[in-house]
Amino acid sequence: MADPLRIVLVSPRNPLNIGAVARAMSNFGFTDLRLVKPYDLAFREARSAVKSAYILQSAQVHESIAEAVAGCTLVAGTTAVGHRDLHVPLYRLETAGRLLREHAVTGQTALLFGSEKFGLSNEDMSFCHWLTRIPARPEHGSMNLGQAAAICLYELRRDESAAALPAFSPPEAASAEEIDRLYMVLMELLTRSGYTQQSTSTSAELKLRRLINRLHIPEHDCEVLLGMLRQILWRVDNPSGE
Amino acid sequence: MADPLRIVLVSPRNPLNIGAVARAMSNFGFTDLRLVKPYDLAFREARSAVKSAYILQSAQVHESIAEAVAGCTLVAGTTAVGHRDLHVPLYRLETAGRLLREHAVTGQTALLFGSEKFGLSNEDMSFCHWLTRIPARPEHGSMNLGQAAAICLYELRRDESAAALPAFSPPEAASAEEIDRLYMVLMELLTRSGYTQQSTSTSAELKLRRLINRLHIPEHDCEVLLGMLRQILWRVDNPSGE
Repeated sequence: MADPLRIVLVSPRNPLNIGAVARAMSNFGFTDLRLVKPYDLAFREARSAVKSAYILQSAQVHESIAEAVAGCTLVAGTTAVGHRDLHVPLYRLETAGRLLREHAVTGQTALLFGSEKFGLSNEDMSFCHWLTRIPARPEHGSMNLGQAAAICLYELRRDESAAALPAFSPPEAASAEEIDRLYMVLMELLTRSGYTQQSTSTSAELKLRRLINRLHIPEHDCEVLLGMLRQILWRVDNPSGE
Repeated sequence: MADPLRIVLVSPRNPLNIGAVARAMSNFGFTDLRLVKPYDLAFREARSAVKSAYILQSAQVHESIAEAVAGCTLVAGTTAVGHRDLHVPLYRLETAGRLLREHAVTGQTALLFGSEKFGLSNEDMSFCHWLTRIPARPEHGSMNLGQAAAICLYELRRDESAAALPAFSPPEAASAEEIDRLYMVLMELLTRSGYTQQSTSTSAELKLRRLINRLHIPEHDCEVLLGMLRQILWRVDNPSGE
């Protein structure tokens, strides 16, 4: 089955950047890489393509954008420029990601990246239905090609519904009686060690109870802490004990 | 004013990766970079820090994680590993981004990245309140350090509300009478050129009208097309005309 998203690098100059794009593609599970007139044809050995040489090996080299995007029903370009008169719609990547995901369900899509030095030319852009921009600081200028590609592919794999759910289940909280046992031992220890005095003990009791409750101590940690405190209490009661 | 987010690289090996992290920080408007025991101290001249040498120049080098995260009230670590018993909560980056953004409003935050070769160690992770994972393919293994940092910083600058709005206002659509004028000229041209025959013209008319409506032609484009069609119609009427 053909990969629904094709990554097209137009006139890329540095094989290390091409390798970095391949690595990001492998990271996010894309495989269809196309190069239009690469500056250096020795890109297939790029060391930066860690664990993704298979993508460089099968990458197709084309003479024109038209050839590279043949069969695609949506062609989107990337640009670092926000102010130039672009003649085609420009979307922030947050929006573009959604549009690309939706289109990829039914049709072949191409995402174009221009050369490291000049980006996509006006002629290159005329092949695009729309353009997208990563919301980076305009003052800085363009991003590194490998990093820009990684961000675009991450956006395509992003899952907002997954954001709502932590991948982690919080540990079982200690019950009120377990917390109370901890409180009793700690209070005892504080009294024996002279931290709480008889005169202030009621307000001290309340403060300590509130402090312990704020900690939301997990059940297992509560047991461990109780063990520690009991041992310390024993030492306080047996200064020279064995 | 201190940058609310601190990027901490633990035992980074390759100065080019450190430079790439600095570039991504500058792209997304972060400035506070800390290095814990970098392998190569000659990182400040890394060529990969395009337009962001100022970040490498001011980067602080620390002997320990404790020193690097001093003053932070939230310490988050990054990991490529999803299955290892991590002992601390693990969130997908979509969730982690929200937690980091929320915390940065009130408190100093540190985001830790481990070395290119080994990632964060169990000891490194014990300094973290929680960990985050970029939702990449686990089969591939870890990402490039510069690319991983770029993705995390993008996630922090992401604006879901901006995703709802196109940065582009669609051009004014042509009005019904302008569309009708276009239809009339095209129909005339098709009849003169023999494309539509008298016998089938009613169904042809309907089809053409529906086709033109489906195009949602912008006002300006409608005028341009009308000019083209009128010129062609004139040529059809004047095969040898001047």
